Amino acid sequence: MHNIDLVVREIADEMRLRTDRGEVAHYIPELARVDPNAFGIAVIDADGNIAAAGDSDTPFSIQSVSKVFTLTLALGKAGDWLWQRVGREPSGSAFNSIVQLEYEKGIPRNPFINAGAIAVTDLILSGHQPREALGEILRFIRFLADDQSVTIDEAVAASEQRTGFRNVALANYMKSFGVLENPVDLTLGVYFHQCAIAMSCRQLAMAGRFLAHNGRNPSTDMSVVQPERARRINALMMTCGHYDGSGEFAYRVGLPGKSGVGGGILAIAPGKASIAVGSPGLDAAGNSHLGRVALEALTKRLGWSIFGV
Amino acid sequence: MHNIDLVVREIADEMRLRTDRGEVAHYIPELARVDPNAFGIAVIDADGNIAAAGDSDTPFSIQSVSKVFTLTLALGKAGDWLWQRVGREPSGSAFNSIVQLEYEKGIPRNPFINAGAIAVTDLILSGHQPREALGEILRFIRFLADDQSVTIDEAVAASEQRTGFRNVALANYMKSFGVLENPVDLTLGVYFHQCAIAMSCRQLAMAGRFLAHNGRNPSTDMSVVQPERARRINALMMTCGHYDGSGEFAYRVGLPGKSGVGGGILAIAPGKASIAVGSPGLDAAGNSHLGRVALEALTKRLGWSIFGV
Amino acid sequence: MHNIDLVVREIADEMRLRTDRGEVAHYIPELARVDPNAFGIAVIDADGNIAAAGDSDTPFSIQSVSKVFTLTLALGKAGDWLWQRVGREPSGSAFNSIVQLEYEKGIPRNPFINAGAIAVTDLILSGHQPREALGEILRFIRFLADDQSVTIDEAVAASEQRTGFRNVALANYMKSFGVLENPVDLTLGVYFHQCAIAMSCRQLAMAGRFLAHNGRNPSTDMSVVQPERARRINALMMTCGHYDGSGEFAYRVGLPGKSGVGGGILAIAPGKASIAVGSPGLDAAGNSHLGRVALEALTKRLGWSIFGV
Amino acid sequence: MHNIDLVVREIADEMRLRTDRGEVAHYIPELARVDPNAFGIAVIDADGNIAAAGDSDTPFSIQSVSKVFTLTLALGKAGDWLWQRVGREPSGSAFNSIVQLEYEKGIPRNPFINAGAIAVTDLILSGHQPREALGEILRFIRFLADDQSVTIDEAVAASEQRTGFRNVALANYMKSFGVLENPVDLTLGVYFHQCAIAMSCRQLAMAGRFLAHNGRNPSTDMSVVQPERARRINALMMTCGHYDGSGEFAYRVGLPGKSGVGGGILAIAPGKASIAVGSPGLDAAGNSHLGRVALEALTKRLGWSIFGV
Repeated sequence: MHNIDLVVREIADEMRLRTDRGEVAHYIPELARVDPNAFGIAVIDADGNIAAAGDSDTPFSIQSVSKVFTLTLALGKAGDWLWQRVGREPSGSAFNSIVQLEYEKGIPRNPFINAGAIAVTDLILSGHQPREALGEILRFIRFLADDQSVTIDEAVAASEQRTGFRNVALANYMKSFGVLENPVDLTLGVYFHQCAIAMSCRQLAMAGRFLAHNGRNPSTDMSVVQPERARRINALMMTCGHYDGSGEFAYRVGLPGKSGVGGGILAIAPGKASIAVGSPGLDAAGNSHLGRVALEALTKRLGWSIFGV
Repeated sequence: MHNIDLVVREIADEMRLRTDRGEVAHYIPELARVDPNAFGIAVIDADGNIAAAGDSDTPFSIQSVSKVFTLTLALGKAGDWLWQRVGREPSGSAFNSIVQLEYEKGIPRNPFINAGAIAVTDLILSGHQPREALGEILRFIRFLADDQSVTIDEAVAASEQRTGFRNVALANYMKSFGVLENPVDLTLGVYFHQCAIAMSCRQLAMAGRFLAHNGRNPSTDMSVVQPERARRINALMMTCGHYDGSGEFAYRVGLPGKSGVGGGILAIAPGKASIAVGSPGLDAAGNSHLGRVALEALTKRLGWSIFGV
Repeated sequence: MHNIDLVVREIADEMRLRTDRGEVAHYIPELARVDPNAFGIAVIDADGNIAAAGDSDTPFSIQSVSKVFTLTLALGKAGDWLWQRVGREPSGSAFNSIVQLEYEKGIPRNPFINAGAIAVTDLILSGHQPREALGEILRFIRFLADDQSVTIDEAVAASEQRTGFRNVALANYMKSFGVLENPVDLTLGVYFHQCAIAMSCRQLAMAGRFLAHNGRNPSTDMSVVQPERARRINALMMTCGHYDGSGEFAYRVGLPGKSGVGGGILAIAPGKASIAVGSPGLDAAGNSHLGRVALEALTKRLGWSIFGV
Repeated sequence: MHNIDLVVREIADEMRLRTDRGEVAHYIPELARVDPNAFGIAVIDADGNIAAAGDSDTPFSIQSVSKVFTLTLALGKAGDWLWQRVGREPSGSAFNSIVQLEYEKGIPRNPFINAGAIAVTDLILSGHQPREALGEILRFIRFLADDQSVTIDEAVAASEQRTGFRNVALANYMKSFGVLENPVDLTLGVYFHQCAIAMSCRQLAMAGRFLAHNGRNPSTDMSVVQPERARRINALMMTCGHYDGSGEFAYRVGLPGKSGVGGGILAIAPGKASIAVGSPGLDAAGNSHLGRVALEALTKRLGWSIFGV
């Protein structure tokens, strides 16, 4: 871990000096208010050692990183039946594209684009009140992070609820094909709130540990999912976790990962570590620019790419 | 290796009994003449031990599996400049789709769809006669396979040259955007012949070994590419190697792989093995059906998924 | 007019005997309850003579035929500025397609597809309460039809409001690009109600007279629009009035026309007559099947095609 | 005719002064060599009187205006069976778009976009040698123009044959769906030559007279097509004659018309006149800019719009 510590600090130092920082998301007004220079990183290895640097304890809006957790939760409830509602292929288009839905009868390509995650949230909501469903999601993430202090940033949720017209369009479009079961505004209410969950890098890395260790948290030895399911969620993160930048992330970083427009990325080094980075400036595909750069440096220096020793 | 041997034989036996075999490609008339019941598998571990079963020594048309080798060759010649001509993202559409080219100004999404591979072949051709370029490709594959007997099936090449109208369309379309440098018919001549290279599973697995071992053939200790390049080619195979079934392959098999419509799949277990399967029946996305089923069984039983121990 | 009378009665008789009637729209539940065998026709010539036959006095839901009237009204308010918000080209896709909006940044192709008409309604709404805007639309149509009895079928409006998810998607999608000014639900409230206006063929033909006579109602001699604007609205009806069946309608009927999924068509023979037909069975493009057949027979027998004497 | 003469001269004078002239097509190198300031106009009324001004006797490359004549010829040979191979709807996309072909299985949307015209040419070629087919097309146009001096500009044909990669792509794409019967290079050979036919405005207006007069040349009283067919060809010109600017042309000019990238437009005022204009600068949709401006002025001043007296 000594080595990891060193690398993590090096990278945080290097990131501080870089001037290419991407563009902070402005389409959710509340997100546009974050510090554009923030950078945090946290790595938790198999033994539970934590290497962290930068703003690793500052909570940020996890946004689409939440899709990993809601997918896990929904698979626990619906099992493979979930795949009737959402596909498993990269989309070849932007995170909020609606074109594919028209050509494929309302079935979103995968659970990690907005449309797919809305469909997943709709499954979690079924049979519940929005408040209950949201409570379940929050409890699940707190359980994964082993931290009861994780909360929802209501200002962000409200901001997106006021301005998230494309998500409203996506949801209504799917509803027109019968892909959503619940009233659209209820499903979206839960969805906007799950995106507004705020977590620090440290909390996020903790919450992702089960994916690095065959579905089990090695510290608590609590099983979250079966090993095969953990592998499969990692596979989806690899092929679909970065919207239309998934190929680039795999090519450069070589780890499964999921990004959010809040600037966070959760990456998994199977058997080795759970990693979270956060930096709000985004690249053209909507993924954290420095987050990707930092992860590329990390996997290179530690030899953690899953595509070669 | 004992265990690998056993698993390979088990799988070959199981595949022989299955009745779901997919559909043999009929759009290249010559390919439609293969035995629909053929199934072969070959696994070569780090020590060079070979476990093979079924029709593992019968040559078949490698078709798009050749794209892995021509990409490797072209990267050796053009380096990262190659990425000016072709992208690195999954396409979200069929192997021979032309739609994406119109929206993205003739730049193919990745080197593993037809358009992308044609652009890569065009790079190899530049400065050469078609015969020389084809000779170079064939020599490279023979070197990788450590087998001088690998040849081109001229009947398949001629068949595709007569009927490959969609590939002619793709190439001319790219040419109209200046993405190809050479006369279209010359580039396509080389492309159709490289697709018609015939190899057995054993030869194919041998040729893929450098990808499993950081760019180096562990038996001959010859370096083919730098470790980072091997990792990156694996990453591209993971996100783009199975056309619009890449997500599914990653989800089920958990290894980088590249398929061809001749029914072959080359899969890489980094650090562990190079694997080739061949079975001509294809699924809806144009990938070998039993090939994928066999690889899924193999990685499960041997614990070789790169997404979890 | 004697001749017109005869032709109109002949056609109504012929339509009664036909067994090819298309499919009644079922996606708006309330519309699915109409009599599938209804057929009405009304022709009003330059002198105000009316030839009518069949169910020409039965009101039906005019649906998208209303788009002609709201476009006329909005042009009166916004003038050519309206064309900042909506294009003038045929869409080459279905009436409720959303694909084009993504490729063209939320600007709908023309005012006669759903997205375009919603944008037009949004212009009418600006500066008003929904109730006022709707009142203005209804008053305008009553004025055109010279008939105060025209009303809105609230059951149809409510039905569409409950089930019109694709229209909600279209509106929110445009809103995300800033193409709509008003709250989406208010704009859609007006839109759904305008579509639910019920009129008979006789009323509809009367309301269309200004388009046949250079913007002026020849009976009352009231000017509705300038001659040039009337010609231009006719031109838009010709190229865009039947969704992705506009070419077919021009080819077969040879008159500008606008259809609605309620089965109505308003067609204009410039200088000669305003024509309305109604028959609820639709063809694959969502246009009244017998309506088009009847209009084709009418223009042929009376020599009214604008493409040749 | 006195009045027509005056208006035509006025318009030619006005066009000479305008500085907005569009962009000369550069993708066919030979076309890029024309005089960008050229402007010609010729109007032939029902009595055969000719009003002409500007460069009305200078031949230019008719390019896609030829599609009107080849459609007429092919309908004469294949009748309505032709519509098995090509549709009748506006495309909603650029003249050389290939996207629609992928979504609609190789059937082009209409005979006036490139793909559609290639399919029409393929029908004319069937059963003939390319030389014969081309001879037939040329004889037909000479017959229509009543002028044996109309010829093919071989330099333009050769230029397009060398650089027409997108047309080669379109043709091969259709061939892959079985929409073309003949070898692609033969069909394209005829197509490129028909596009390279050179005509003056006077000749072009003469050749279009049958469309203005119910299929019959009023001077020679020779029948070219039945009246219904003439009307239908006019209808297709109205909805599809200006690629993705067809709506705009209908809206502004109000006549059926067909443009070519050589800068020519043939427009038809049914019962009144056949009109040809030529000016090489194109607008964004690939239609002659001043040609459209001139026709808009002409129809306005003469009251020739078919959408209102």
